[in-house]
Amino acid sequence: MTDGDVLPVTGAWQPGDPAGRRKFFTFASDRRFAVEGGRTLSDVTIAYETWGELDPDGSNAVLLCHAWTGDSHAAGRAERGHEAPGWWHDMIGPGRPIDTDRFFVVCANVLGGCQGSTGPASPHPADGRQYGSRFPVVTIRDMVRAQARLMPHLGVERWHAVVGGSMGGMQVLEWAITYPRRVRSIVPIATCMQATAQQIAWGAIGRRAIRLDPRWRGGDYYDADPGDGPWEGLEIARQVAQVTFRSDNVFTDRFGRELADRSAYGDTFDLWQRFEVERYLEYHGIKLVRRFDANSYLLIGKAMDLHDVARNRGSLLAAMRRVSAPTLSIGISSDMLYPPYQQRQIVDVLDSVGTPSRYVEVDSPHGHDAFLINLDQLADPISTFLERAFTS
Amino acid sequence: MTDGDVLPVTGAWQPGDPAGRRKFFTFASDRRFAVEGGRTLSDVTIAYETWGELDPDGSNAVLLCHAWTGDSHAAGRAERGHEAPGWWHDMIGPGRPIDTDRFFVVCANVLGGCQGSTGPASPHPADGRQYGSRFPVVTIRDMVRAQARLMPHLGVERWHAVVGGSMGGMQVLEWAITYPRRVRSIVPIATCMQATAQQIAWGAIGRRAIRLDPRWRGGDYYDADPGDGPWEGLEIARQVAQVTFRSDNVFTDRFGRELADRSAYGDTFDLWQRFEVERYLEYHGIKLVRRFDANSYLLIGKAMDLHDVARNRGSLLAAMRRVSAPTLSIGISSDMLYPPYQQRQIVDVLDSVGTPSRYVEVDSPHGHDAFLINLDQLADPISTFLERAFTS
Repeated sequence: MTDGDVLPVTGAWQPGDPAGRRKFFTFASDRRFAVEGGRTLSDVTIAYETWGELDPDGSNAVLLCHAWTGDSHAAGRAERGHEAPGWWHDMIGPGRPIDTDRFFVVCANVLGGCQGSTGPASPHPADGRQYGSRFPVVTIRDMVRAQARLMPHLGVERWHAVVGGSMGGMQVLEWAITYPRRVRSIVPIATCMQATAQQIAWGAIGRRAIRLDPRWRGGDYYDADPGDGPWEGLEIARQVAQVTFRSDNVFTDRFGRELADRSAYGDTFDLWQRFEVERYLEYHGIKLVRRFDANSYLLIGKAMDLHDVARNRGSLLAAMRRVSAPTLSIGISSDMLYPPYQQRQIVDVLDSVGTPSRYVEVDSPHGHDAFLINLDQLADPISTFLERAFTS
Repeated sequence: MTDGDVLPVTGAWQPGDPAGRRKFFTFASDRRFAVEGGRTLSDVTIAYETWGELDPDGSNAVLLCHAWTGDSHAAGRAERGHEAPGWWHDMIGPGRPIDTDRFFVVCANVLGGCQGSTGPASPHPADGRQYGSRFPVVTIRDMVRAQARLMPHLGVERWHAVVGGSMGGMQVLEWAITYPRRVRSIVPIATCMQATAQQIAWGAIGRRAIRLDPRWRGGDYYDADPGDGPWEGLEIARQVAQVTFRSDNVFTDRFGRELADRSAYGDTFDLWQRFEVERYLEYHGIKLVRRFDANSYLLIGKAMDLHDVARNRGSLLAAMRRVSAPTLSIGISSDMLYPPYQQRQIVDVLDSVGTPSRYVEVDSPHGHDAFLINLDQLADPISTFLERAFTS
């Protein structure tokens, strides 16, 4: 697909919702896109959606960065190409915290993804067959550099704000470091400056589960019969993540020790009889399998594990010294995956280099996923922060 | 093997260590052992080790209960049949916190295990072939009832104390509830009264990884060629557990973001290039695979998920009201798997039913595994508790 192709939204909008549509921008057709790891890509397509209108002076653009299995569909109902409703639907729209009467809001599917942007399930330009195992490892920096190509295309010279949670927050930090003059302010949420060993451990275990699935076929499963892909491995990988996205308390309140199944053998117990929490995890695993490509899951997870703002920049401090954008760092009290100390560290480091920053903590039992759930607590700090006229 | 068979320990002992030896006790040859789930077993063997001497009045016996992948080898070096040194080696011996000059110490491999006690890798009495998928689900209560058969054999009418961490602590609680007259005091450590949804979730994900391994063969893999068992599934299951056994802080201090491998492709990055933490997890996974049976891992994990002292006892309070043994409940500050609130709950509930109890918290960064690591902090509370002359 080329620049300007539009998939119309069908029946997705509530009255009062801004009109959104998914568009595609293709670059690197002439000059290949070199990824940080050393290989190159050509014909890179980035799928994106926009809400609201860009001011004539191009000063009201807000970039949203999505998380691991998110995509460009930040707002709107489920629609063709997006089985889930917008991941921040209630945050975006006229009069909403990210007010589309004021801001031109943009969200792009990441490089390596599977929701319209070029990724391992895309056709390789050389032979038209899916990349599969031929797709290079990409980094958060590659995702951000690919998004940056959108700016001249959209007529945006500088983002009023770059905002995102989890892996979205990693992109937010990389935006402010890589392109300090193109970012007026940033809002990293439930994220970190460097993936920790524990975060890497969870990611790696998920990757091993996918690799264990014989239907993964070393990454080249696209020619297999439908239903013969690495769905079980992906489902298990997702289950690992899903537990880390939530919390002990919420699992206890919601599932307790309720059983979902009777024993298949007439005994009181059997090995595969599920508790409710297992049914919940399987539900979420299967739900992801239906909409997400296993190779994209592997690649994007690896990109998160490789996330380290200090890489090739001398030190963490040297990297963060490049951040001139005023920063609102948001943590979540019950986040076991990206614990709040990591978002406080962002503010501590920015303080030490003299960049204005503020820390806000969402008080929630929901764990990491609170950045998608507790919009009530995110709304005020974010809308207030966006209203500020940054003069830097 | 029958009662009294002895495997001598060869070269395992330090000067001053008590002489230990693994013995086997077989029961249910005449009267079959009905497991809680409804099936029966015959010819049940329990492997156990003892340290110290039983007093003539049989009043100085201490039972230690091991955790998931532990076994009867609580003290002693690595030896034949035990690739790892005793899991509480420095706790047990003359003058040590559990003083074998004073106490007769017993530790038995659990029913369903693979270190000498009857489990899925044991020969089925009907045909001499391994049980495999024919082995029934067992519960913590079944493990305790099997251990109870040891008492007359050993000449013990009442344990001075029953002590154990993690799954060992589950057995400790079931001992005090099932056999209140046979237990003078208990020390449950880093454990809970009922497995929570989050604990079940971690266990279930590990089981799914083993089931995904095509070499698991529905549990009947014992006839496969060596090296063709479900080792990779077991390795991944162990990796999930290993992360929950430790802590974010310790992983960061120990591994940070160090790489273990160079890229295999000459790129800066590739998908299977490991960080140090991945090498560590693989090391622990492979180490377990070499000494542990995948079916035992499945079964014992399921037993933990089924752990609920309230089951068929009316309520949690009704169950805990049966506990008359003074209780020392020990928690670990950084335990993410069995967080300290769960061990405080034990004391709260015992308080409410009038049973003397005390809570001690180990202040450690090591996470759940601190019950095997921070013996410095366990030594005093446990030895002091054991010295008390309980008169109930």
